Amino acid sequence: MNGAQSLIRTLVGSGVEVCFANPGTSEMHFVAALDAVPEMRGVLALFEGVVTGAADGYARMADRPAATLLHLGPGMANGMANLHNARRAHTPIVNVIGDHAVYHKGFDAPLESDIDALNGWTHGWNRTSTDTASVGQDAADAVAAAMTAPGRIANLVLPADVSWGDGGEVAEPVAPPVPVPVEAERVRAIADIARSGESTVVLLGAGATREQGLLAASRIAAATGVKVFVETFPARLERGAGLPAFDRLGYLAEQVQWQLTDVKHLVLVGAKAPVSFFAYPGKPSELTPDGCEIHVLADLGEDTAKALADLAEAVAPDTAPVLQDPVRPEMPTGELTPQNWAPVIGALLPENAIISDEANTSGLMIPMTTVGAPRHDLLTLTGGAIGQGLPVAVGAAVACPDRPVVCLQSDGSAMYTISALWTMARENLNVTTVILNNRAYAILRMELMRVGAEGAGPAANSLLDLAKPDMDFVKVAEGMGVPATRATTAEELAEQFAKALAEPGPHLIDAIVPSLI
Amino acid sequence: MNGAQSLIRTLVGSGVEVCFANPGTSEMHFVAALDAVPEMRGVLALFEGVVTGAADGYARMADRPAATLLHLGPGMANGMANLHNARRAHTPIVNVIGDHAVYHKGFDAPLESDIDALNGWTHGWNRTSTDTASVGQDAADAVAAAMTAPGRIANLVLPADVSWGDGGEVAEPVAPPVPVPVEAERVRAIADIARSGESTVVLLGAGATREQGLLAASRIAAATGVKVFVETFPARLERGAGLPAFDRLGYLAEQVQWQLTDVKHLVLVGAKAPVSFFAYPGKPSELTPDGCEIHVLADLGEDTAKALADLAEAVAPDTAPVLQDPVRPEMPTGELTPQNWAPVIGALLPENAIISDEANTSGLMIPMTTVGAPRHDLLTLTGGAIGQGLPVAVGAAVACPDRPVVCLQSDGSAMYTISALWTMARENLNVTTVILNNRAYAILRMELMRVGAEGAGPAANSLLDLAKPDMDFVKVAEGMGVPATRATTAEELAEQFAKALAEPGPHLIDAIVPSLI
Repeated sequence: MNGAQSLIRTLVGSGVEVCFANPGTSEMHFVAALDAVPEMRGVLALFEGVVTGAADGYARMADRPAATLLHLGPGMANGMANLHNARRAHTPIVNVIGDHAVYHKGFDAPLESDIDALNGWTHGWNRTSTDTASVGQDAADAVAAAMTAPGRIANLVLPADVSWGDGGEVAEPVAPPVPVPVEAERVRAIADIARSGESTVVLLGAGATREQGLLAASRIAAATGVKVFVETFPARLERGAGLPAFDRLGYLAEQVQWQLTDVKHLVLVGAKAPVSFFAYPGKPSELTPDGCEIHVLADLGEDTAKALADLAEAVAPDTAPVLQDPVRPEMPTGELTPQNWAPVIGALLPENAIISDEANTSGLMIPMTTVGAPRHDLLTLTGGAIGQGLPVAVGAAVACPDRPVVCLQSDGSAMYTISALWTMARENLNVTTVILNNRAYAILRMELMRVGAEGAGPAANSLLDLAKPDMDFVKVAEGMGVPATRATTAEELAEQFAKALAEPGPHLIDAIVPSLI
Repeated sequence: MNGAQSLIRTLVGSGVEVCFANPGTSEMHFVAALDAVPEMRGVLALFEGVVTGAADGYARMADRPAATLLHLGPGMANGMANLHNARRAHTPIVNVIGDHAVYHKGFDAPLESDIDALNGWTHGWNRTSTDTASVGQDAADAVAAAMTAPGRIANLVLPADVSWGDGGEVAEPVAPPVPVPVEAERVRAIADIARSGESTVVLLGAGATREQGLLAASRIAAATGVKVFVETFPARLERGAGLPAFDRLGYLAEQVQWQLTDVKHLVLVGAKAPVSFFAYPGKPSELTPDGCEIHVLADLGEDTAKALADLAEAVAPDTAPVLQDPVRPEMPTGELTPQNWAPVIGALLPENAIISDEANTSGLMIPMTTVGAPRHDLLTLTGGAIGQGLPVAVGAAVACPDRPVVCLQSDGSAMYTISALWTMARENLNVTTVILNNRAYAILRMELMRVGAEGAGPAANSLLDLAKPDMDFVKVAEGMGVPATRATTAEELAEQFAKALAEPGPHLIDAIVPSLI
């Protein structure tokens, strides 16, 4: 057995059964080994940003990592923006980064570069396999590292000769460490605060935005009067009818400051105290109000869901959670506007959907219009590196082939990783993509005003303008094998969205929505 | 004057008049400042890999750097694969990487990352502006660093508050250091070798593949019998009728070994001794024959063109260069094949063209079929990170608006940076793109065999296959505003290529060419 085969067999044995791949010559033995291990599904993407974003979306939904296959330093570099998002989402991912043969590295061949520097940037677990006999163990260790709470990126560099060498050995799965339990004393202290009657906000983040955590948080709120928010960009938020509904903190600093007005205690559960997404002249970075005490119920790496359950048991043993009623928005009519497209989605969202949301400014109304839709999962842009929505939808659809995936995607962001459409077609994934085509980096129009930039005129505005030429996403999608239609009215959007959801495989709707600003 | 204005004014004063940009919030003051300095042309791209690749193509043709504008670490990361190619091309580039305000960095906002680690990966010049008053000087120093022979990447990190702060000062241009002259003794020693009658190869690289270097090399060869090769992937090779014609070293190790058979002396001029692009089991990394002595006439950073001129003066004072006659291939007919599309290009290549060549396996015949075409520049894939061809074509066309740019682009590679087409349309660039659409990563089919990977079957082959679905580049191009046609015969390709060249603005031809293997 060569190194590549032992690697793939070990991954499969450790529960990693999908590899999103964009291979090159140095990865050919890995590619060849896929035929020896049919349990591993190879999914080809045409750009590494799709590979890593898909791995992110996959693990958010599957609760176990996918592998990626990347071609040396430049392949890793192309995948790094979405690894940044995955890092912020605390998503477990096992990157297999092919490299030159060990003996070849000193020759500075054209594709040689400092892969370690790139891996370090991901703040994950890093190892280079140096010996064919230990590749299997390296792979098992990588999976365990990725699965270490709250989840992280594991980078395994695989030199070509280690991959093609004989003597590979399959390793047993390695159990990741158990999440650190939260001591009872801390739960008691937070319980005292919750019962104090002072204005208290509980902020839910990693590990606390799934059903179990939400139900506990709702009981705590109902029993004590604390207010609950979800962090601004949760990796995966379960929501909809039958689940507790909590607002997310806003994207804009002003929104967060308003949401936290007069709060005396901020209780963090797998989340960080809110800071401004960007700096603005004369405005604060920290958004917690003056005089507000910050308390940590459970930090990243601790058992957040268990801590919330313990807190609920302490303060709300007999209190039931408050659940969202099923409610759908009225179906809108007329020309599409920034306001009326979101109710269409809310009115028609199917049972058990997964939403990959990179609608940015166009998506401001989505939380409101979908709150009482059938239960669904929401996957958001966790790290601010745009170009995540389409790849995450790919990965979610691979992880959950029986669930409808809805990708709400702004036009500018779509173009970073547009070839994800091809992978949707290739794998016949059940993804309905709605492009919010406002022909602008609308968020930057807003930010240009908010930062108080002086003297902006035609030259500045042209760099925020995606018209001239207008993108035709129908043609782009069809060119990549995805059936597509254009909607300019709410009625058209509704008809096309319902039809797309009713048919298997990917679809795209190019929704012409004017820019909010 | 704020920091951003002083930065842009200094860049313009230092000869940097184009900024390829994909900005975000932290760069809004830079964007606004473009209206205050109309001499700086901002060119928007929809993905940072297009930004950096365009800056590479621009500087290869303009002989001075463009600036880029990149959005924090993730924006830099997206641009890095083409910066890798630019590093290998020794292209001067000034990257302006926006960052959070200095006081905001400690808060670990979502887009925070270790930008220094990314910059280090480019092996260039790095500085973070920490003070608005010195941003101008930082910019002048960055341009000088980029222009230091043989050319390199300068990374200037611009925190938002340094950019928006008042008190910016425009700095005078800084002269880059003069290239190190080659001492007469070294020229004399190489002259002795050239005249020795022993089998000698002169290998031309950075600084030696332009007219002056080529003419000198040709005179040396004519007078002494040495053989001249150009490095495998030159950044910019001037060629065609009226110039000396030298073969490039091959991509495959076997080709190079054949080209260097029995050579006793290898003389390097701005080039490195050839090594295998990848490692292969049982095959050597170094491709210089056993017993061949390696000599350096001029190293990177030295004045290669002057050294060649001195050597020519020493060994060939009265010898004329051998110039390529004008000759065109016969116009082929019939269904497109891997062999017959390249003569169409050679037969019709216009005067003074610039070829951006990322045709990969499909392009094997291009050097032969264009050797006697009218004089042109050839820009190649220097670092092996695919996705360079379209962006380099963008940059070359911006640098040389009066010259026709021909982009020969393989299908798989095109998809990494496909949004370059939109920038071509936006800027109405005279680029004629020919997609060699063979529906495969054909080079990897070849490499899968060459690396001796065992057991490759359907699973492996599917990861090298770009069919299912077939890409329709006509639709993709039209969707991004570029007029496009499809060619399936040599006659159609000829007609469409001639028509595209005759009309201003960008065009794309989706040439359906079977895979070589």
